[in-house]
Amino acid sequence: MRSINQSFSVTYQYTVTFTKGIFHVDNPLFAALFPKSPLIPKLLVVLDQGVAAAHPDLVAQIAQYGEKYQKQFKIAGPVVTIPGGEQCKNDQMHLERILAAINEHNIDRHSYVIIIGGGAVLDVAGYAASIGHRGIRQVRIPTTVLAQNDSGVGVKNGVNAFGKKNFLGSFSPPVAVVNDQSFLTTLDIRDWRSGIAEAIKVGLIKDRALFDFIKQSVTQLVQRDAETMDKLIHQCAELHVQHIASGDPFEQGSSRPLDFGHWAAHKLEQLSNYQLRHGEAVALGIALDCTYSYLIDKLSEENLIDILCLLREIGFDLYTDLFEEDTLLQGLKEFQEHLGGELTITLLDDIGCGTEVHHMDTEIIRKSIKLLYRYHHHNSLSA
Amino acid sequence: MRSINQSFSVTYQYTVTFTKGIFHVDNPLFAALFPKSPLIPKLLVVLDQGVAAAHPDLVAQIAQYGEKYQKQFKIAGPVVTIPGGEQCKNDQMHLERILAAINEHNIDRHSYVIIIGGGAVLDVAGYAASIGHRGIRQVRIPTTVLAQNDSGVGVKNGVNAFGKKNFLGSFSPPVAVVNDQSFLTTLDIRDWRSGIAEAIKVGLIKDRALFDFIKQSVTQLVQRDAETMDKLIHQCAELHVQHIASGDPFEQGSSRPLDFGHWAAHKLEQLSNYQLRHGEAVALGIALDCTYSYLIDKLSEENLIDILCLLREIGFDLYTDLFEEDTLLQGLKEFQEHLGGELTITLLDDIGCGTEVHHMDTEIIRKSIKLLYRYHHHNSLSA
Repeated sequence: MRSINQSFSVTYQYTVTFTKGIFHVDNPLFAALFPKSPLIPKLLVVLDQGVAAAHPDLVAQIAQYGEKYQKQFKIAGPVVTIPGGEQCKNDQMHLERILAAINEHNIDRHSYVIIIGGGAVLDVAGYAASIGHRGIRQVRIPTTVLAQNDSGVGVKNGVNAFGKKNFLGSFSPPVAVVNDQSFLTTLDIRDWRSGIAEAIKVGLIKDRALFDFIKQSVTQLVQRDAETMDKLIHQCAELHVQHIASGDPFEQGSSRPLDFGHWAAHKLEQLSNYQLRHGEAVALGIALDCTYSYLIDKLSEENLIDILCLLREIGFDLYTDLFEEDTLLQGLKEFQEHLGGELTITLLDDIGCGTEVHHMDTEIIRKSIKLLYRYHHHNSLSA
Repeated sequence: MRSINQSFSVTYQYTVTFTKGIFHVDNPLFAALFPKSPLIPKLLVVLDQGVAAAHPDLVAQIAQYGEKYQKQFKIAGPVVTIPGGEQCKNDQMHLERILAAINEHNIDRHSYVIIIGGGAVLDVAGYAASIGHRGIRQVRIPTTVLAQNDSGVGVKNGVNAFGKKNFLGSFSPPVAVVNDQSFLTTLDIRDWRSGIAEAIKVGLIKDRALFDFIKQSVTQLVQRDAETMDKLIHQCAELHVQHIASGDPFEQGSSRPLDFGHWAAHKLEQLSNYQLRHGEAVALGIALDCTYSYLIDKLSEENLIDILCLLREIGFDLYTDLFEEDTLLQGLKEFQEHLGGELTITLLDDIGCGTEVHHMDTEIIRKSIKLLYRYHHHNSLSA
């Protein structure tokens, strides 16, 4: 049998930079992202409607910035504004609008799509960039806590289809990420809080010190102290970035440790018709899987109470009527199907120490839900 | 300025295997592609309508094969048949049918999409596999000369949009390619011939020995000798595979040496409403760019005549009225835009030796066309 063996590697590099006021004309950081070249690169800007509304001067500021740095890049066409939140991933119209702008303004593989927004906008515009001409360079400017410390600094994108979250998407690293803390000042309190759920998640599965930092900083975080949040985002983004590089960046295997609490979270978001924010659903999912870990004697009662207390102090609900929906458990199956292979769920052995299991017991899930109900209504784990 | 640096590599490996009768129950090759595992992988089969018509027993044969090897894989759902040729890339309906089947039969990231067909079917089904769940494993079984020696063994996929070829697509290596020479026996003469154009192209830019082999084998190739074609495909696929690994597999730079003759070819295909086969258009594009190379004193007259003779002996037309269309030259611009960056065109210094230029002169292109007209009608380069 004759055959030809092919083997090659593709290397990806990008920097996550922290700044304030990225489009302030005196801030050279953004312009410096584009290597000087006789061919001035074209930029297509995609902007989250929510960010545009909270920062009414932003579009003018970007234009002014573009004028000052016109030797380094050229903004092609008007800013494309799309609604934030899950709706932009559900309705293909938004993806199509971005692709149409890529076509109309001749955005090519050496041009850039600049994406300013929350996780959903980064997902849909990142997907558009990744499939246009087989991959246009993308710069991500995440504007929420969640996007700055988690999804926005990673390599995934996608849109929903056939009623399934991220049914279509790709792994497509950005060429740069810029976390601008000025965008966080105008966040709705629910969005401010949501991002903290992913930080707690990372602390729980990987880094007890991060968990302790959040515990010690609850007051500042709840009072929206910018510097504390900045420290939290930096630590969390760093762990996220390290995790991607050290493991299986494009998830060719079965393991997905960063998706702790996510099998239930994804389903709860869907069951709530996306009225639950992703971080709120993740907090519920974490509460559930921590309680499950406690019930199967992996996590101590003290640790469980510590975790539930922290989630509640940040402001999360730990119980929802959606827990009682019969279809919740389908979330496990859908989680497995999305990835394929063996069901692999992360639970906790300890705070800072995740562990993988390949089965979850339906009865113990139901018991966990009952326990969370008691904790929610009676502030106690015992009957 | 604080920042986090990310850097990682992703390694891809696959094998191109040569066989006869891949779905003959006594041929264990196909079944052996799937590593033994307690979780039997699911396979979704996508089949080119033209192949199904030429091999009316194929679907039954696949089912029978699946039954024999049911411990190694499970065929999920009926075979999805889509039309071959550029039409399946122009009408999004075919892409959507494949995605709907992926959804319906729960094809996940550890399942496989098995694609049997010509280059266009491989492109659209490969694209569907690459965006479903952010990337489902794909096995390619190219059924034309062109797909077996060129596109099918490579890493690209795509569909057309906004009237532009491959406007949407991705770089997504298969997990395996199997070249089955039995499929070549039923090819239309135009499809048999078309693939030889890409082989001549590779010989011209990279390997004089391959060009000479084709020259010496003209009679056998024209008489459709299977073993000669097998040797040609093997050499050409090997050069193609090596080229991908040694260069810039996902084309992040500006250079595209394998696209010799392709700026005109892509445009001619479009101008002909895809009545020209890709290989026929490539032969015309090669003739044009070789003549251009001669007119700017890169290629000798002797070499040019050698090349034009060979193309004609294989059976290609070297002139088309479409050469006279004013929009032909837009092909240069579109070629540049698809890739972005500086215009980079491969020309020839010698047979077996490509060279890159960043500009083509409109007047010299017109002169090249006139020269090909003369050669076509009067069998001579001189007026």
